[in-house]
Amino acid sequence: MTQRIAVIGAGPSGLAVLRAFESARKAGAEVPEMVCYEKQSNWGGLWNYTWRTGLDEYGEPVHGSMYRYLWSNGPKECLEFADYSFEEHFGRPIPSFPPRAVLHDYIAGRVDKSGVRQYCKFSHAVRDVTWNAETSKFTVVVNDLAAKSRISEEFDYVFVANGHFSTPNVPTFEGIEKFLGRVLHAHDFRCADEFAGKHVLLIGSSYSAEDIATQCHKYGAKRITFSYRTRPMGFDWPDSFSERPLLTKVVGKTCHFQDGTTAEDVDAIIFCTGYLNHYPFLPDELRLETRTSLYPPNLYKGVFWEKNPKLIYIGAQDQFYTFNMFDAQAWYARDVVLGRITLPESYDAMHADSEAWVARLNALPDVEAMIDFQTDYVRELLAETDYPRLDVDMCADLFKQWEHAKTEGILTYRDRSYPSTITGTVAPVHHTTWMKAMDDSLEAFLNQPASQAAE
Amino acid sequence: MTQRIAVIGAGPSGLAVLRAFESARKAGAEVPEMVCYEKQSNWGGLWNYTWRTGLDEYGEPVHGSMYRYLWSNGPKECLEFADYSFEEHFGRPIPSFPPRAVLHDYIAGRVDKSGVRQYCKFSHAVRDVTWNAETSKFTVVVNDLAAKSRISEEFDYVFVANGHFSTPNVPTFEGIEKFLGRVLHAHDFRCADEFAGKHVLLIGSSYSAEDIATQCHKYGAKRITFSYRTRPMGFDWPDSFSERPLLTKVVGKTCHFQDGTTAEDVDAIIFCTGYLNHYPFLPDELRLETRTSLYPPNLYKGVFWEKNPKLIYIGAQDQFYTFNMFDAQAWYARDVVLGRITLPESYDAMHADSEAWVARLNALPDVEAMIDFQTDYVRELLAETDYPRLDVDMCADLFKQWEHAKTEGILTYRDRSYPSTITGTVAPVHHTTWMKAMDDSLEAFLNQPASQAAE
Repeated sequence: MTQRIAVIGAGPSGLAVLRAFESARKAGAEVPEMVCYEKQSNWGGLWNYTWRTGLDEYGEPVHGSMYRYLWSNGPKECLEFADYSFEEHFGRPIPSFPPRAVLHDYIAGRVDKSGVRQYCKFSHAVRDVTWNAETSKFTVVVNDLAAKSRISEEFDYVFVANGHFSTPNVPTFEGIEKFLGRVLHAHDFRCADEFAGKHVLLIGSSYSAEDIATQCHKYGAKRITFSYRTRPMGFDWPDSFSERPLLTKVVGKTCHFQDGTTAEDVDAIIFCTGYLNHYPFLPDELRLETRTSLYPPNLYKGVFWEKNPKLIYIGAQDQFYTFNMFDAQAWYARDVVLGRITLPESYDAMHADSEAWVARLNALPDVEAMIDFQTDYVRELLAETDYPRLDVDMCADLFKQWEHAKTEGILTYRDRSYPSTITGTVAPVHHTTWMKAMDDSLEAFLNQPASQAAE
Repeated sequence: MTQRIAVIGAGPSGLAVLRAFESARKAGAEVPEMVCYEKQSNWGGLWNYTWRTGLDEYGEPVHGSMYRYLWSNGPKECLEFADYSFEEHFGRPIPSFPPRAVLHDYIAGRVDKSGVRQYCKFSHAVRDVTWNAETSKFTVVVNDLAAKSRISEEFDYVFVANGHFSTPNVPTFEGIEKFLGRVLHAHDFRCADEFAGKHVLLIGSSYSAEDIATQCHKYGAKRITFSYRTRPMGFDWPDSFSERPLLTKVVGKTCHFQDGTTAEDVDAIIFCTGYLNHYPFLPDELRLETRTSLYPPNLYKGVFWEKNPKLIYIGAQDQFYTFNMFDAQAWYARDVVLGRITLPESYDAMHADSEAWVARLNALPDVEAMIDFQTDYVRELLAETDYPRLDVDMCADLFKQWEHAKTEGILTYRDRSYPSTITGTVAPVHHTTWMKAMDDSLEAFLNQPASQAAE
């Protein structure tokens, strides 16, 4: 009887799984029956922008943390699919830092072309996954949101690919309940225009804080204050920015920090405090419990749930590598499902392997070492599958160049160009610098302005 | 063997159930074992204020739709518990329109006193309820959010009391995704101060629109525009208010309406478009599907799920009556569980009864008839239990007086005083008119200002 696999989520991770199996099928392999359950009404995961916040039209938590005017914060050359280059998709080279709509178009283009949309059930929210040891099958319970009905199906494998940048981590602070301005998490940030003329306090010191603050600055925020737990980001910020230690309390519109300083007349507090790994549909014995990590524990090869390796997590890592790492994971997991790769027989052997990675991670001295760590991880997965050649050493080098470029100019690093690791083409310089590119549409990005086109 | 009942939700409806059984127990009856699962960390349901919006600290949808500065929008005399008067709780008469903190204190006071907190499991989110016809028991699956574990227990009866003013109904409008201001649902409204100096568009023409608009006005909003689907509210609004027909599209910060008019420079759009009946933990065969209604279909006596009357909905109605109606329902359902009242044996008999109520509802001509309708419903329930005498005709009269008072002055109706239906005492006039009462704390409400205290 044909095996069946369920994929939870049709974002970059889930789509990588569909694409991996479809690629094998087109090459003549017999592949399992696939069903991909996606809570949203379209694919693309985080890259599927919605204006909604909080709960969606069906009362489900809004998945998206995407905001308007988001441009890739890393070079597109570091996330390029080895089997589908940007040049192939757009018919010509494009600049290194595209806005959201362009990346969504690229992600969707590959899966449209490979014909996997037929496997996707949109507006379907997974409620429960249980393992039946007697039948060696999973039962997956799903709400069909539009039909308002609940369905239950059996599968041999379940791929968990619902992402972990969706459920906000929101700590509390003394007095926050009486703050006289607006409080939100980065997850609910949508439109930087709203903060024009405002004094915005951002709590956090990672990508969300850095990028939302520069967005607000670009669209007219009056003043930016950051509050960090461990250390300041230390970029060469504009004069209207300042970095303070952790918020201790809020009184009216005044925010107090650990060093005794205050920020006055704060209009909005944006929590850039990260996301929870959140799998409310998984029972205790199948659920990954982890903070965001470059190597979450208990996952053999970073994907197989060691206590039951028919449950497979895709994209559960913290990420330098993104789309192409999800591909590497999907191709590897696919080959295990197809019997091309054999897993170690014992839990102990798998766990020893993952623990060695975790131990190595815990000893890393700096960001460059972290980049090398994830590079080695991706390299190891790629070595055993037929995924097209990806030059991970070149990727690692680009990541490091990018880190340095950010240090050199946090408002200008997106104006640089990098070479494709797939085609070798160096990206063209964009027609407008990032600070002046106010229109983030695909059309504005791809069209040369009339003046340049005429040259 | 002792019977077991599960109560889902520890808001006014769920607490009424606990109180009803506890009252019987104290009078000497043998009562079932009770477990009340509450998603929030404390009881009070909607009256339990949180500054959080969207998702809570565990990634669960925030239950609360409560905002700062909310004062009761109906006279407290219409919702007074017959077994626990405001005078008993506060030790003296208090004004007719208390702020949120005062009502929460009152709700919590009764249940604190009756000792039912021991039955409540806080931070427990119900995930699934299934009925097993062979054992005649429900299996309830619950996530213990703090412990991050899932538990499963069996019950003879399940009371669904999770409320229906929690999951926002959010329609969409052309161009809303590119609106250059803030978009939120009333569910996520917290602090009126944020809208000082702003032009606020509120979509809707019911209690949320009316009250949030007057709140924003009170705290300094520059301009209020309402957009209605069916008809304007027609109150005697301040000059800075206007009512328009339905929004057709949004362009930048300009909102276009069905009559061809526009509102310019809109800073925020607040959806006051109501709430969904949302029971994601119930399977199709147990789940109430209804719009907000004074008599939702398929509920015998407005509470028993006719296809399986061991599933009992409390407070599923749209409401003039609130706390005391939940009590009437809880006392009636309790007496069915205790065998004091016998349900009709057939589904058909129960369904014919509820359909007659629904038919009567559908023919009601106006608001006064609706008040009489719900009065008759509550009267019918009360007639068969030992709930202390409640003068529903007096309640109905107060509701009608209140409706008229709102028409006479939408900003002044809260300054009126009404007599208690329980003690007969006429409420004292508050020390400050509502428009000038900026501090909504329990302390400010209960304390006479120094000048008056000295008189």
